[in-house]
Amino acid sequence: MRAFMDSDFLLKTDTARELYHKHASKQPVIDYHCHLDPQMIAENYQFADLAEIWLGGDHYKWRAMRANGIPEPYITGDKPPYEKFAKWAETMPYTMRNPLYHWTHLELSRVFGIDKILNPATAREIYEECTAKLQTPAYRAQEIMKQMNVEVVCTTDDPADSLAYHKAIKDSGFSVKVFPTWRPDKAMAIENPALYNEYITRLEEAAGISVLTFDHLLDALQKRHDYFAEMGCTVSDHGLDTFYAEPYTEVEIHAIFLKVRAGKMVDDKELAKFRSAMLYEGACMDARSGWVQQFHVSAIRNNNTKMFKLIGADTGFDAIHDHHFVVAMNRFFDRLNSEGMLAKTILYNLNPRDNDLLVTNAYNFNDGSFPGKMQFGAAWWFLDQMKGMQDQINSLSALGLLSRFVGMLTDSRSFLSYPRHEYFRRILCNVLGNDVENGELPESEWPFICRMVENICYYNAKNYFGW
Amino acid sequence: MRAFMDSDFLLKTDTARELYHKHASKQPVIDYHCHLDPQMIAENYQFADLAEIWLGGDHYKWRAMRANGIPEPYITGDKPPYEKFAKWAETMPYTMRNPLYHWTHLELSRVFGIDKILNPATAREIYEECTAKLQTPAYRAQEIMKQMNVEVVCTTDDPADSLAYHKAIKDSGFSVKVFPTWRPDKAMAIENPALYNEYITRLEEAAGISVLTFDHLLDALQKRHDYFAEMGCTVSDHGLDTFYAEPYTEVEIHAIFLKVRAGKMVDDKELAKFRSAMLYEGACMDARSGWVQQFHVSAIRNNNTKMFKLIGADTGFDAIHDHHFVVAMNRFFDRLNSEGMLAKTILYNLNPRDNDLLVTNAYNFNDGSFPGKMQFGAAWWFLDQMKGMQDQINSLSALGLLSRFVGMLTDSRSFLSYPRHEYFRRILCNVLGNDVENGELPESEWPFICRMVENICYYNAKNYFGW
Amino acid sequence: MRAFMDSDFLLKTDTARELYHKHASKQPVIDYHCHLDPQMIAENYQFADLAEIWLGGDHYKWRAMRANGIPEPYITGDKPPYEKFAKWAETMPYTMRNPLYHWTHLELSRVFGIDKILNPATAREIYEECTAKLQTPAYRAQEIMKQMNVEVVCTTDDPADSLAYHKAIKDSGFSVKVFPTWRPDKAMAIENPALYNEYITRLEEAAGISVLTFDHLLDALQKRHDYFAEMGCTVSDHGLDTFYAEPYTEVEIHAIFLKVRAGKMVDDKELAKFRSAMLYEGACMDARSGWVQQFHVSAIRNNNTKMFKLIGADTGFDAIHDHHFVVAMNRFFDRLNSEGMLAKTILYNLNPRDNDLLVTNAYNFNDGSFPGKMQFGAAWWFLDQMKGMQDQINSLSALGLLSRFVGMLTDSRSFLSYPRHEYFRRILCNVLGNDVENGELPESEWPFICRMVENICYYNAKNYFGW
Repeated sequence: MRAFMDSDFLLKTDTARELYHKHASKQPVIDYHCHLDPQMIAENYQFADLAEIWLGGDHYKWRAMRANGIPEPYITGDKPPYEKFAKWAETMPYTMRNPLYHWTHLELSRVFGIDKILNPATAREIYEECTAKLQTPAYRAQEIMKQMNVEVVCTTDDPADSLAYHKAIKDSGFSVKVFPTWRPDKAMAIENPALYNEYITRLEEAAGISVLTFDHLLDALQKRHDYFAEMGCTVSDHGLDTFYAEPYTEVEIHAIFLKVRAGKMVDDKELAKFRSAMLYEGACMDARSGWVQQFHVSAIRNNNTKMFKLIGADTGFDAIHDHHFVVAMNRFFDRLNSEGMLAKTILYNLNPRDNDLLVTNAYNFNDGSFPGKMQFGAAWWFLDQMKGMQDQINSLSALGLLSRFVGMLTDSRSFLSYPRHEYFRRILCNVLGNDVENGELPESEWPFICRMVENICYYNAKNYFGW
Repeated sequence: MRAFMDSDFLLKTDTARELYHKHASKQPVIDYHCHLDPQMIAENYQFADLAEIWLGGDHYKWRAMRANGIPEPYITGDKPPYEKFAKWAETMPYTMRNPLYHWTHLELSRVFGIDKILNPATAREIYEECTAKLQTPAYRAQEIMKQMNVEVVCTTDDPADSLAYHKAIKDSGFSVKVFPTWRPDKAMAIENPALYNEYITRLEEAAGISVLTFDHLLDALQKRHDYFAEMGCTVSDHGLDTFYAEPYTEVEIHAIFLKVRAGKMVDDKELAKFRSAMLYEGACMDARSGWVQQFHVSAIRNNNTKMFKLIGADTGFDAIHDHHFVVAMNRFFDRLNSEGMLAKTILYNLNPRDNDLLVTNAYNFNDGSFPGKMQFGAAWWFLDQMKGMQDQINSLSALGLLSRFVGMLTDSRSFLSYPRHEYFRRILCNVLGNDVENGELPESEWPFICRMVENICYYNAKNYFGW
Repeated sequence: MRAFMDSDFLLKTDTARELYHKHASKQPVIDYHCHLDPQMIAENYQFADLAEIWLGGDHYKWRAMRANGIPEPYITGDKPPYEKFAKWAETMPYTMRNPLYHWTHLELSRVFGIDKILNPATAREIYEECTAKLQTPAYRAQEIMKQMNVEVVCTTDDPADSLAYHKAIKDSGFSVKVFPTWRPDKAMAIENPALYNEYITRLEEAAGISVLTFDHLLDALQKRHDYFAEMGCTVSDHGLDTFYAEPYTEVEIHAIFLKVRAGKMVDDKELAKFRSAMLYEGACMDARSGWVQQFHVSAIRNNNTKMFKLIGADTGFDAIHDHHFVVAMNRFFDRLNSEGMLAKTILYNLNPRDNDLLVTNAYNFNDGSFPGKMQFGAAWWFLDQMKGMQDQINSLSALGLLSRFVGMLTDSRSFLSYPRHEYFRRILCNVLGNDVENGELPESEWPFICRMVENICYYNAKNYFGW
């Protein structure tokens, strides 16, 4: 019987333990994709209590609470912080075998130094101890990041964002590098002309360019792209339901853009053409700047209209999609590749049934120009859990090069999520340790295997993104 | 070397064994979805021989025999019972690693007390011993159910069924509760107007209502729905290839219904609209009555026309479908949810590639009103086997709340299938025991873990269905 | 700690070791599907060096090298053999956990008797030792096949091929049987009329028939089919993206054929109809001749246009498709089955998400005429690796009859690939050994289990193909 979550948590062999403790655990954290609020970093935010930092924006926990029969006022409603927390503590045991159970206890342990089990009996003392700590300087936003050995963080930002907080962070001399990520989803979102035109107004302001035509739009985006680069950005990101690679002409795209600027709705064909054009143009910008482009596909979002009207997007009503995407994806990459415009690329997939599909198709576009150019990204969102990570590691191993993997990220809105890197590293070391012990990898190559672990945890990302 | 199927079968750790023997094995069986014939229960059927009870309607065994090169006369043909059984015994060793191998030996052991291996050498003695037992009172239908510790059974019934046998069972004071399940598939099946109109005639008789319009149809169904409720029914079921949520108007549905009543074929669009309307109306009936609704999706049926003409449906020529369904499913649930008409729901999926998809999408519609309101149902049909169950448990765990799962069912036409509950319970306990031994669940929460096992085996279903 | 790839490689229990060493390892190899060049067999080819035999046509290695950042001149370009090999050796450690790592070391060990680890430090000595051996008579093509205990090989051949080399091999008295496989993909490929008409000219020559109409085409194909049969062929193969079973009339097919013969492009509907007709007619030829038909589905090919133009097809730019195929597949088999024209059939699937789908649907068409008539084929191409094989074994076990499986094949262009049979056999024995040790299969049935292993490794294929 192993103690719960002890120092050898998830490490089932001596080899795994050595890999983890001597090689993985020491690496700094490069969190190259997250959703932290740059303002909170810049202002070195101090959290009021454990409910705010833990339950504030965490739709994973909200989903679990709803499934456990907790009414909405205790989740996103106006109940007092401790009452909300008490409902979360009540739900906690019911999440056994869900990643929340491990994440929660890892965060309590690694950030707060508390090794108690959270349940209704311990809720009050844990809440009070954590809340007291959160009111000390050591638990401000920047201090948590330093305590967690974070070296680089990439936030997720819109082309129209001023990046003022990124500039402030940079100027402040904060030891953790905080870079923006170029996420132009809104610049593609012509399905709602009114919202889109409001957005274009904000983009015009940010770029200092009047956007009357599609060419102006590209000019404005390019200008912002250059400014992002100036602020240290080397990576873009796209949140897509699926890929778009419809044939189109420039004339068509210009006409569609003018139609939307005139406030008119476009049809599905026009929408697909416009998205195809925007994806292509954005990919060319990334390629010209030598950036990395990321694509997150196969989410189906905002499925619960009633709750969307009440509390908006990103509140726990999204899920896994069952789109076909391989034909469009390959057509998209093939065009870029033929034109010498295919940037380094990371593909994240939300439907695990497509893991193998994605690795094999991504690898059609490796060209020998950079090791691991086409990446099958880390287990994302719903897949960011033990089996999801193991599956990602196994698909990448069997069909690609695990050794070239740029590793884990949090994709998180929370300052407490860094132990997910530890979780991933333990799983990775356990997999490799197991292979060595079973005679499936040669012990004689031990130095390479140790370096491979260090690379996946740290050096691969550092080299790939150019830091 | 462990003995085959001993008392610790499938239980690989001490913790698993304790969970199973002290907590899981003692729970009564709630078989909330099956296809038992209520007449056989009511009449306390006595089986003629082992061939009748075991091979009579079991298309799992038929498929295996066909795959093993056994000619059809020995399967569904007119060969004498023992000759059929001998062919099954001959096939038995060839089913090693197929669930039939475990089911068969569990049924021999648990129902008949025979721990021999079935093969050609033992066929005669096993046949004779079982057949002799089947001719005693202890092996009549009701006695088998009592011996297997069954507490509740839900059969599967058509709205036009009289439920006379359910009434008879209830009146007889039989200690096992036998409830009907509302399965209105035929009321949707307008693709064959002739058959449909025959069906409507039967429904008219059952409801005592003349069905000239779509409103009459709803009236007749509602009347039967109420009568089902009166007979203790709290659950509906739908066997669908995929979900339907096409936009429609009432006027369109009325016109489609009249067209079918006039004996005319409808086109694919009309069919989809009608199915969409019927699914919606049925779901509202269930919601108003506080029932549980079940959906079984992704089967592709009657693929072998030659055999369908010879021996009809449900004879072993069905399989797994590769439909897309998530957009329609979410639209269907979203409408119900927006209107406050979403009943407790269990979703069963036949294509295991969609397990994760299904859990995440179902959980979009949990609303805090009841713990585990939206359920990812037990491994169904082809997935009702060791890996299928493990996969269901693991997807539900990683993406939802295993602790709230309403547990196993047989979905069976046979009185011998109850050991499948035992099979599931052993697998469940092994999974949890393993986690505790590995330090992935805390031993300090042992009482909760034990209760969780008891809940999944028994109490969750009891509470969920309201028994 | 187990030594890397020792004699008990992949065999984790004593039972597995006994199964493998006493039963599996001794069986001859029947490689019923490969892409060896019959000319090289006929001429008993002598390889120049290790680069030629190992890197010459192996797009698995090429993909890995491109992913590892190796420029194309070292892969398919004109760099000297040793420089290419050195780049492969440099890539080798980066393939850890990829099947290439195991295949490479198995081939070094089993064919060349070298148990060193290939890496940059050992590259030179391994290259020289192997190259020296390759220049001896014992390493000519035929000798390698004999050394690897190969009994039968089926190459992959076009109806227009003369089979002159097959005749030469047969006449030479070579102890390994080398049969052709009927692969009529080009006879279906009307999407490019110019290429198609060139092909028809070659077919006319081979058949000695002037092909003016679709009936002539069928006559020419039948004549070649008969000649293939004469040369020992008992098996066909089809490389399909998906199945085709569109309704068509003979008149339509004749018109489509004339259109193509006149050099005109056909539209998608015509293409689908023509493919449907050709698949059907080919299947009938196979059925009439008592052959086995093979279908390989769900590849998406030639995705990288730039590289296709530079170096052509089959160079490492193919991947897994996400087509729907089950409705068309079932319609195709159902028609054949209804007409008594369904030959023994092996289905290979490249998208592992469809494994379960494929087994259950294939089994709809077992008819008791031959044990294992409908086969779920061995893990293919990207799936030909440890997890891919385990998944194939597990899906087939849970949903079909593993005992009737015709077993492994190489699908390879290389004379060095035979150790993949060993790899499969070890995995198979490990799976079964594990079940016996866990009490999931009865030790009392040991003789049957041993025979089952021997059957899957050798006898099932021998009986199924009629050798």
